[in-house]
Amino acid sequence: MKATVYEGSKTFNVIEKEIEQPAVGEVRIKVAYVGVCGTDVHIYHGMMDKRVNIPETIGHEMSGIIDALGEGVTGYKVGDKVVVRPLDDRKVKPSDKGFNHICEELKFIGIDSPGAMQEYWNVPAFTLHKLNDNTDLKLAALIEPLSVATHDVRLSGLVAGETAVVLGGGPIGLLVAMVAKEVGANVIISEVNETRIAKAKEMGLNAVNPMHIDLVQYVREQTEGRLADVVFEVAGVQPALDIMTEIAGIRGRILMVAIHGQKKEVDLFKFFWKELKLIGARVYEKEDYEKSIALITANELPFEDMITDVQPLSKVQQVFENIDNNPDGMKVLMDCQL
Amino acid sequence: MKATVYEGSKTFNVIEKEIEQPAVGEVRIKVAYVGVCGTDVHIYHGMMDKRVNIPETIGHEMSGIIDALGEGVTGYKVGDKVVVRPLDDRKVKPSDKGFNHICEELKFIGIDSPGAMQEYWNVPAFTLHKLNDNTDLKLAALIEPLSVATHDVRLSGLVAGETAVVLGGGPIGLLVAMVAKEVGANVIISEVNETRIAKAKEMGLNAVNPMHIDLVQYVREQTEGRLADVVFEVAGVQPALDIMTEIAGIRGRILMVAIHGQKKEVDLFKFFWKELKLIGARVYEKEDYEKSIALITANELPFEDMITDVQPLSKVQQVFENIDNNPDGMKVLMDCQL
Ligand SMILES: NC(=O)c1ccc[n+]([C@@H]2O[C@H](COP(=O)([O-])OP(=O)(O)OC[C@H]3O[C@@H](n4cnc5c(N)ncnc54)[C@H](O)[C@@H]3O)[C@@H](O)[C@H]2O)c1
Ligand SMILES: NC(=O)c1ccc[n+]([C@@H]2O[C@H](COP(=O)([O-])OP(=O)(O)OC[C@H]3O[C@@H](n4cnc5c(N)ncnc54)[C@H](O)[C@@H]3O)[C@@H](O)[C@H]2O)c1
Ligand SMILES: [Zn+2]
Ligand SMILES: [Zn+2]
Repeated sequence: MKATVYEGSKTFNVIEKEIEQPAVGEVRIKVAYVGVCGTDVHIYHGMMDKRVNIPETIGHEMSGIIDALGEGVTGYKVGDKVVVRPLDDRKVKPSDKGFNHICEELKFIGIDSPGAMQEYWNVPAFTLHKLNDNTDLKLAALIEPLSVATHDVRLSGLVAGETAVVLGGGPIGLLVAMVAKEVGANVIISEVNETRIAKAKEMGLNAVNPMHIDLVQYVREQTEGRLADVVFEVAGVQPALDIMTEIAGIRGRILMVAIHGQKKEVDLFKFFWKELKLIGARVYEKEDYEKSIALITANELPFEDMITDVQPLSKVQQVFENIDNNPDGMKVLMDCQL
Repeated sequence: MKATVYEGSKTFNVIEKEIEQPAVGEVRIKVAYVGVCGTDVHIYHGMMDKRVNIPETIGHEMSGIIDALGEGVTGYKVGDKVVVRPLDDRKVKPSDKGFNHICEELKFIGIDSPGAMQEYWNVPAFTLHKLNDNTDLKLAALIEPLSVATHDVRLSGLVAGETAVVLGGGPIGLLVAMVAKEVGANVIISEVNETRIAKAKEMGLNAVNPMHIDLVQYVREQTEGRLADVVFEVAGVQPALDIMTEIAGIRGRILMVAIHGQKKEVDLFKFFWKELKLIGARVYEKEDYEKSIALITANELPFEDMITDVQPLSKVQQVFENIDNNPDGMKVLMDCQL
């Protein structure tokens, strides 16, 4: 079998290796598609070399078909289409209060342990979600990032008729916007990249550029002065933090989806004054995967438009180099069947 | 009648003026006691001269007895003991979504309009809460700040058995700690002023000094690693903001009670990582006053200990000068009957 391996310093290799038997409680998956995530790009840039066990196969946004069952695995059969929820919560403790998806000793499969960018992948059966036989496996590779969005929208408590502003129209922002719209909310995306604005519009979403319009004024007009009920911070930059507290209305909820590596300035006065809520959100829980699987199965949202490129496993190095050269692309899939 | 008047530049006068008839919908209160609030001290320091209509009578933490009813006032009679909820929400709009206590056009009585530091005070009847005839009017002057605490604890969702850390053991922090303890929570106060720590301990509260102990380690030990379920930021300083995200456990709630005039640095990564919630809290709602009145009526908490001084109206200038010279005192009441 072929496997890609991250070697450090912006280098991937494609190696030939033996297909392994799944261990007790594991399954072997014949991987179909693997999406390239912002985190994978971070790894490629060497930003996570302390966490990744180099040389290592990475990748966690995937779809595939069960190829073999390890001892003790029940409820699945060879040929089942599946996706993996890449959270290894086996070291959960009582002090995690039952929030396994963010438990202190959580291991993220595909970062802390081998990932999906290979022909065959062995994973613990408890990470699996079964798909319908007629599910499109390309779209199914979106289930992992889509579950970030379904998690965020669920934690926000967004309901039909409310107004949500999504700061940042990257892959995660667009998925959040789609899910928020599906809930019945009035959704506004704020994005500074014109190609991405065009992409969002093409997908039937409302996107504006805060460099060209007064976003606060725009949101005020769209809401008869109520301002946003929910703001999703999915841009990860100081200007987004500056504006999030301006565009949120009284008792507005701000979802912190973006990952801020350093301490940042926040207008805490506005939190006091308008009784705002800031809600941190990380990955997803079982029910978020189930919601995403239902959305992908129904296939009524413009998921196809998210996938801007599909490349064979052998092109892994070129794929990562291209992403660096073209920040406008949305989601690139690696086809692991080729 | 006698009235105190803030004249600007750290100066109060006591003037003699006519007792006024209450207007339509108003009552005249014979004021009993008025607590001096941190906000009043801010006003004294000239920090709010733009908002206060100088020369002006200030004060909003009070108790008193109805002295006369204006036309159209029902449900009250002369002699009723009352407190005022000093929120004038008459300009509430649909865009305030029913959150009248933080409506955009809210006027705070005693800051934006005349306050209670005088013998008689005319206020709209809708601001009144009736007390039992046997309520101690000194303790009743604590109902306003206590309602800040009952509001904060209610918004935090704190329940029995949870651990709450209160950052800052000033008047508001101590009241929050008392209410949190009454809920059945395990309460830890973090305070840097040793006199205030001693005060808290005298009141049967658990208070520690984060300059002398490792607060994160202490909270970890007290909770078998769970860390705090709820943190109340009532100190208003950067070190409190730095530690609040450290001591909060998975899905911990942080109540932003302190008023931060400038943007401050916040560790947003921790919000993402532990799925923390930041909840802004401002003043109180009707039900918070009702809860506070019930607590003061029951008088089972160490409210008496909160009152560190009682001075006649005529001493107003000295009272404010003393507060500046003695940051250790807790709550000073002005006796308006003398
Ligand atoms: N919470 C989680 O579990 C989780 C999971 C996945 C990703 N993330 C985080 O979500 C964020 C978004 O991920 P992504 O893959 O979509 O990233 P991305 O970088 O592709 O998207 C960010 C977008 O924000 C836009 N932007 C920049 N400045 C802006 C501004 N001032 N106003 C509006 N938009 C602006 C950029 O042009 C870009 O399109 C990242 O911080 C990522 O780390 C979090
Ligand atoms: N949200 C509201 O509606 C509302 C209402 C009233 C007051 N407030 C605010 O609440 C805050 C507290 O009010 P207060 O009257 O009790 O003020 P205060 O200044 O008397 O109390 C603050 C306390 O924090 C302590 N402190 C300072 N640094 C500390 C640190 N590093 N760690 C722990 N403690 C520290 C101080 O020693 C002091 O005792 C203020 O910011 C005030 O503006 C808010
Ligand atoms: Zn990812
Ligand atoms: Zn006050």
